[in-house]
Amino acid sequence: MKPTVTFAIAVACILPCASAFAQFAKPEDAIKYRRSALTVMATHFGRVAGMANGRIPFDANAAVANATIAEQMSKLPYVAFVDGSDKGDTNAKPLVWSDRAKFNAAAEKLQGEMTKLVAAARAGNQDALRAQAGATGAACKACHDDFRKD
Amino acid sequence: MKPTVTFAIAVACILPCASAFAQFAKPEDAIKYRRSALTVMATHFGRVAGMANGRIPFDANAAVANATIAEQMSKLPYVAFVDGSDKGDTNAKPLVWSDRAKFNAAAEKLQGEMTKLVAAARAGNQDALRAQAGATGAACKACHDDFRKD
Repeated sequence: MKPTVTFAIAVACILPCASAFAQFAKPEDAIKYRRSALTVMATHFGRVAGMANGRIPFDANAAVANATIAEQMSKLPYVAFVDGSDKGDTNAKPLVWSDRAKFNAAAEKLQGEMTKLVAAARAGNQDALRAQAGATGAACKACHDDFRKD
Repeated sequence: MKPTVTFAIAVACILPCASAFAQFAKPEDAIKYRRSALTVMATHFGRVAGMANGRIPFDANAAVANATIAEQMSKLPYVAFVDGSDKGDTNAKPLVWSDRAKFNAAAEKLQGEMTKLVAAARAGNQDALRAQAGATGAACKACHDDFRKD
């Protein structure tokens, strides 16, 4: 069994990742997982963005905590765009699979902006946080525009 | 607006948590969030359990990485069982809301077992990891038995 599993991991790890991070029994499991990770990421990023733009009262500790979770979550979904998971309960466009280099670049861009968001939250300056929340949100939107239907 | 938001957080924080960790615009947002967090947790815990029982080849680094994510995820879902989220796309039993002390205790039990799982994974001993994966899985099941329909 081991060689097969190892091969599957090698194929599926589209971004640098530890082994055992891309094991899904079925394509629908991968879809459910990545949608879930993106939901959790969006929830916590939304709270940071809300504090940055004044929709939610600014709380420095909460900004750091939410940004940290959003950053951690940003590392998870992309390995789950495995072969065969382009069909089913997904809004992913075929471009995810046909231009993987561009998709990976968009994912890495978002991950980098999330890391900067944590740094901005830690600095505790609401103006800087607002600017970085904008940059991070733009990275979300850019990926959605290119790779998500709707 | 601030006093209202602060009050909502105070009511919703059923477990010790930072502020801004229980802000959901609608009950269905809370349901989607908690189901997502539980899906991500179950995925990563499943990989640790698979390695512990030999279903997946044992990889010490992957065990630590997956256990760490599962532990982090175990901290997220419970604040999302907010008032009004007992209806809709949820399998949660009414007991979650009518016996919150018991629900909180079950959540804390799972969180504690997840922390022990990370320690067992770090120790790198597959036998110890198997025992702790069993204890962690038992905490999952106990909560499901009492608080989840199906």
